[in-house]
Amino acid sequence: MAMKWAGSWVLATVLAVAGLAKAAVVEYHFKVAYMSAAPDCYSKTIIGINGGYPGPTIRATQGDTVKVTFENHVVTEGITMHWHGIRQIGSPWADGTAAISQCPILYGESFTYEFIVDRPGTYFYHGHFGCQRAAGFYGPLIVDLPKDKHEPFTYDGEHMIILNDWWHRSIVGQEQGLESINFAWVGEPQSLLLEGRGRYNCSNVPEYKPAGLSCNQSDERCAPHVWSVERGKTYRLRLASVASLSSLNFKIEGHSMKVVEADGHSIEPFWTDNLDLYSGETYSVLVKADKQGDNFHLGLNVRGRNDEQVPTGLGILNYKDKPVQQPTTPAPKGPAWNDFEASKRQAKTYKALQNNPDPTSHPFDASAPVTRTLVLLTTQNKVEGRIKWSINNLTYAPLQTPLLAGLVYNISGAYDTTPPPDYPAHGYNIFAPPEPPHTNVGSGMYQFNTGDVVDVIIQNAAALNNVSEIHPWHLHGHDFWILGYGEGQFDPAESPKSYDLKSPPTRNNVATFPFGWTAVRVHLDNPGAWPFHCHVEWHFHMGMGVVFTHGIDSVRARGIPNSVLGCGLTKQLFSLPSP
Amino acid sequence: MAMKWAGSWVLATVLAVAGLAKAAVVEYHFKVAYMSAAPDCYSKTIIGINGGYPGPTIRATQGDTVKVTFENHVVTEGITMHWHGIRQIGSPWADGTAAISQCPILYGESFTYEFIVDRPGTYFYHGHFGCQRAAGFYGPLIVDLPKDKHEPFTYDGEHMIILNDWWHRSIVGQEQGLESINFAWVGEPQSLLLEGRGRYNCSNVPEYKPAGLSCNQSDERCAPHVWSVERGKTYRLRLASVASLSSLNFKIEGHSMKVVEADGHSIEPFWTDNLDLYSGETYSVLVKADKQGDNFHLGLNVRGRNDEQVPTGLGILNYKDKPVQQPTTPAPKGPAWNDFEASKRQAKTYKALQNNPDPTSHPFDASAPVTRTLVLLTTQNKVEGRIKWSINNLTYAPLQTPLLAGLVYNISGAYDTTPPPDYPAHGYNIFAPPEPPHTNVGSGMYQFNTGDVVDVIIQNAAALNNVSEIHPWHLHGHDFWILGYGEGQFDPAESPKSYDLKSPPTRNNVATFPFGWTAVRVHLDNPGAWPFHCHVEWHFHMGMGVVFTHGIDSVRARGIPNSVLGCGLTKQLFSLPSP
Repeated sequence: MAMKWAGSWVLATVLAVAGLAKAAVVEYHFKVAYMSAAPDCYSKTIIGINGGYPGPTIRATQGDTVKVTFENHVVTEGITMHWHGIRQIGSPWADGTAAISQCPILYGESFTYEFIVDRPGTYFYHGHFGCQRAAGFYGPLIVDLPKDKHEPFTYDGEHMIILNDWWHRSIVGQEQGLESINFAWVGEPQSLLLEGRGRYNCSNVPEYKPAGLSCNQSDERCAPHVWSVERGKTYRLRLASVASLSSLNFKIEGHSMKVVEADGHSIEPFWTDNLDLYSGETYSVLVKADKQGDNFHLGLNVRGRNDEQVPTGLGILNYKDKPVQQPTTPAPKGPAWNDFEASKRQAKTYKALQNNPDPTSHPFDASAPVTRTLVLLTTQNKVEGRIKWSINNLTYAPLQTPLLAGLVYNISGAYDTTPPPDYPAHGYNIFAPPEPPHTNVGSGMYQFNTGDVVDVIIQNAAALNNVSEIHPWHLHGHDFWILGYGEGQFDPAESPKSYDLKSPPTRNNVATFPFGWTAVRVHLDNPGAWPFHCHVEWHFHMGMGVVFTHGIDSVRARGIPNSVLGCGLTKQLFSLPSP
Repeated sequence: MAMKWAGSWVLATVLAVAGLAKAAVVEYHFKVAYMSAAPDCYSKTIIGINGGYPGPTIRATQGDTVKVTFENHVVTEGITMHWHGIRQIGSPWADGTAAISQCPILYGESFTYEFIVDRPGTYFYHGHFGCQRAAGFYGPLIVDLPKDKHEPFTYDGEHMIILNDWWHRSIVGQEQGLESINFAWVGEPQSLLLEGRGRYNCSNVPEYKPAGLSCNQSDERCAPHVWSVERGKTYRLRLASVASLSSLNFKIEGHSMKVVEADGHSIEPFWTDNLDLYSGETYSVLVKADKQGDNFHLGLNVRGRNDEQVPTGLGILNYKDKPVQQPTTPAPKGPAWNDFEASKRQAKTYKALQNNPDPTSHPFDASAPVTRTLVLLTTQNKVEGRIKWSINNLTYAPLQTPLLAGLVYNISGAYDTTPPPDYPAHGYNIFAPPEPPHTNVGSGMYQFNTGDVVDVIIQNAAALNNVSEIHPWHLHGHDFWILGYGEGQFDPAESPKSYDLKSPPTRNNVATFPFGWTAVRVHLDNPGAWPFHCHVEWHFHMGMGVVFTHGIDSVRARGIPNSVLGCGLTKQLFSLPSP
């Protein structure tokens, strides 16, 4: 049954993509280097692309081949780029995950990613090595429908805003703090940014010339982001959260939003005046510019963590017929940061679009038998005095040889074949920290067969400080169906009875709420090595992730390019060329 | 003649080394990671080794094989380690120069350097990728004579102090400023450090919590370095300058120093009360602890650049029979920073030790014919709006494929075969900036034959701001003889008449003074690819260097390990192993 499903679905996709009129090759050239920026008026050295921040918009049409060549000028650092939400069907080596899909692109090197964008929608790209995403290394990626096709919703114009959280300290210092026995947490962000712009209160920062830094609120680089609209028109606003930590809530003063797309998938539309975005999520909302007034706040707030220290991130919705002005009304606020019920209500609102006309939409088939079930208990632990996050008592540590290369070339010693267990230890109490706090370290690989249909339950629990927080999980290479969310400990006998098996939304990001569980179903139809991890940059760096692998024989048969090799044990594959 | 000389000298070395009683293998394991440090009381994230700073002392006996395994935990960054002053005879791949001798050791990787320490003396090691040396990535390396051999000087005890200059800004921001069209110079250092310790006046730095940094003068990590001595004894004080910019002058309050070793070579001893150290230089001085008093300042000052903003770096010489106390006397000062005549006088004082008993000393043979002469004019230029340093109108840019691998594997396109010219443009006026300021970019490779005896004249000139400053030049893989220093423009007919062909000192570092020239002679007897560059970290990063290559056939015959490959075009050498 699973194989039949796999076959029919893959066939449908291939036919759909192949059937598109004029698949083109869309090329970009990205020169990556450190640059000086002041996103929230406070100057900082960030990783920029082509001298700008955020990175350029990549735009292509469904079925196109996208080729992006990177020139790495970031002194001494490697880089990789992940195409978040693009499944990389047939190109698992191009997923851009250091230690998993490729060796980093080294300082001085060039490297070209090449992949097909098989599905229309709103996506983004971001660095996936260390915590470079938090250094500003990201940008938007939009896939349009071919001209002769239409979305199941209409609009007159569109606009995209990338949302994130921002710290003044360099990622080097932040990473060092997280890795230390003398643990130093990054703390709440100094600012929230809309399209890379915020405004920090510089009077908090005295001048300190020796550091060569500045904070200047009249710096044009931190002028608020302005979205200009024509009165009376309806807009598609594309939103993406690349936040390193914060769950976000987005509001448009005085305007309601009709949510129509989530993670590149059409959903049953619903209206809201505030939208939750967990890190890694993308949305399209329709907004009608039909209000009295000229300028309105765009407002961004923190959800799920105490937001007292984090001022609302602000942008401006401007009606084009009037000059741009910062509104003097109070900054818009969504639900209280700790109103978790509001967040859960909204999360549960998402349903797959009924009668979706998109042939690439992945229809849910409740009759497909589930071949394996994982319950992933996420806990906070300690390894040799350092704080780590674990999945079923295994914390993920990056490999020196990318897992995909290790598997494809069958390199002895390149990876750890012991997976984390499929289930947590029997009787684990999710309401208390692990005792003892020790955890194991590994490469966290679950091996599957292509065609498997897997239910994955992520079980949230108490951290070492007894708090349980929101974790946004993201899967590479596949989408999944969100079957449901539950409170407390997952009960294998009872909990699945609450699953939505009728119209679960298809996504590649999902939140787990404090002391609760989230269940997703994934059809493993795209061979490769794919991380499934908490999208909080700091949490993944502390080991909060696993890797799903399957179909390595088929990857080996297609081959992976030499350009993704060069690190770790792949050096064993060098040979002296004949003279 | 040259070949005869080469033969006899190499033979002498090999015999000398082979003849040593018990050559041992000395092993070290270095775990490299970012760490929090406060060398001058101001907290900063630096690159530490085994959790400490400066790095551990490597100590071996002449003829030993030193093996140092690096585990790189510096998130996203590659690292390399250069063994400054160790010629790497027969092991050119272990010289630790990124883009020249090896691919960087990547984050997560391990790599082992293995080399013979053929000559006793005082050395150090430091990172040689980007500007990582300036992030604190260095430590001392001492090679002892075998127990049955004796230095041509005696002492009762010894002590080593590494000297350097220190900035509060991260190297990431510093590099970004140097590379920008909107050029931002690093400026003078905030502090001068003795053995990684200084004291910044924290009242200059207001608190700024958001950055997660601190400045605390009672932080024990910035307590002054103390050298404790027994009254009446004579000490060998080993000194090394790893400075990123500053030329340094070292003084011991109330004590004179007898200089006996320079760059690992015994010299004709001389007495001084202040010692100039240019970046890259090492010295041994004998100090007699025979003064009235209990505690004396160790003082470090800047030479050759305006030192008004740079307080004297201070340590303490303590007579062990009395408690340690910071002296209340004024900080010791050497000659005025702009007393260049004093520096030149001291530089010219160095002479080879007459009747040196060390069989590994490289005797100067004035009768050996010079096979090639280079005059390297060093200018400051511009490339696409960016400020660069050039040698004969070519600025050095690191290659993506290490030059040694490119040459050994004959990789097409891996390097640039056009060398900089052997001479500057005829009639170039060294007293004015280049006009037009444009320069060419390349890999700066001079190709020689093994056995060549080359005279290299480094010609200093006006920078773009009309100032000419001190540049300390360092050669890898070889020592050279310093033939002389001269004022103004080098005259091929007249200037060589002033050469010291009788007892020129053997070294691997030499300074050029403002608007002057320095002549060295080098016997190219150690095959490989060897940078010759300004040892100011910022200047080399701006292109101030060339590479000398020779004897590649012999390197190829010995082979280079796969572990130094993996980057750039060496990926062409990968092959799929048979299944």
